[in-house]
Amino acid sequence: MFNRKPAETEINPWKTLNEQQVYDNRWISVSHHDVINPSGGEGVYGVVHFKNVAIGVVPLDADLYTWIVGQYRYPLNRYSWEIPEGGGPHGIDPLESAQRELLEETGLTAKTWIPLLDMHLSNSVCDEYAVAYIARDLQQGIAQPEETEQLRVRHLPFAEVVEMVLTGEITDALSVAAVLKTNEWIRRGKFPL
Amino acid sequence: MFNRKPAETEINPWKTLNEQQVYDNRWISVSHHDVINPSGGEGVYGVVHFKNVAIGVVPLDADLYTWIVGQYRYPLNRYSWEIPEGGGPHGIDPLESAQRELLEETGLTAKTWIPLLDMHLSNSVCDEYAVAYIARDLQQGIAQPEETEQLRVRHLPFAEVVEMVLTGEITDALSVAAVLKTNEWIRRGKFPL
Repeated sequence: MFNRKPAETEINPWKTLNEQQVYDNRWISVSHHDVINPSGGEGVYGVVHFKNVAIGVVPLDADLYTWIVGQYRYPLNRYSWEIPEGGGPHGIDPLESAQRELLEETGLTAKTWIPLLDMHLSNSVCDEYAVAYIARDLQQGIAQPEETEQLRVRHLPFAEVVEMVLTGEITDALSVAAVLKTNEWIRRGKFPL
Repeated sequence: MFNRKPAETEINPWKTLNEQQVYDNRWISVSHHDVINPSGGEGVYGVVHFKNVAIGVVPLDADLYTWIVGQYRYPLNRYSWEIPEGGGPHGIDPLESAQRELLEETGLTAKTWIPLLDMHLSNSVCDEYAVAYIARDLQQGIAQPEETEQLRVRHLPFAEVVEMVLTGEITDALSVAAVLKTNEWIRRGKFPL
């Protein structure tokens, strides 16, 4: 989906001596690695494997309004306003997951989906991979949140969400990156508005 | 350091029934939680706690050149070009950690440090908190990499790094967000160049 130069194919300077799974649930597994680090010293590495791709959507209507979602984030113990986000299994087209998440959280369906970015969210410890889209040509239906979600949805000018990012009111990394990249694309006239 | 509206103080709709640590090393601990989700259903939550704050620095010299760092990221099993990054213990001023990381990785010291952003990198599972700065009034010294790091450093126009973000060549979320926000600030004339 995303066209880019391949990551440089440097030889991995780390050596794995031993690897043992220490935790597993429906969403993540954690493994403990005995390693030789790039300087030849012995060490350990705890790696968190994510079973889902993180999905983000920036819906943009004809008036350049968007939708954001508020929810309580359990790991942070705080409330967070974000672009519509969710997770999709590896091996399923992330676009399908994006369409499902947008519908569940906002009730929106979109005729046009524009790949926006993919990223690694926390690469010092986690292998989590994130994909985001811009959704256009929107139609409003009924939201269908999952039972683990207690969501609030706001419909507001996209420019206002850019300000929420710039002032630090939005702290979710996938939202920050997706909003700022969409903003840059809009400024460059990259897609028809 | 960062001035913003506080996160909304909604009541946490999750209830924690039980919590057990399942893994611990120098950088992270992982705990398994039995929970009642926001809809009242029983569930589990695996939470990854980070012992360090993630630190990122965008050094900008008088010609608007910057420095990026290439390294092999063990959890991703791939090479990654990023802004200078590292970790600093909670409880230590992240600015101190940023100054140390910039010096270690690039040999640079800076007279002016501008708080750029703070974010949560992966809030569905992790509590990882990230802080980034812009470093100005730079002086070049000798890099002092940690033994676990095998780094390459490039000195190049900041505008070129913006393009590396927009084309997806840079996939590290903290780098993507920090570069795009710096770019937006430059465009808005937010700080003297």
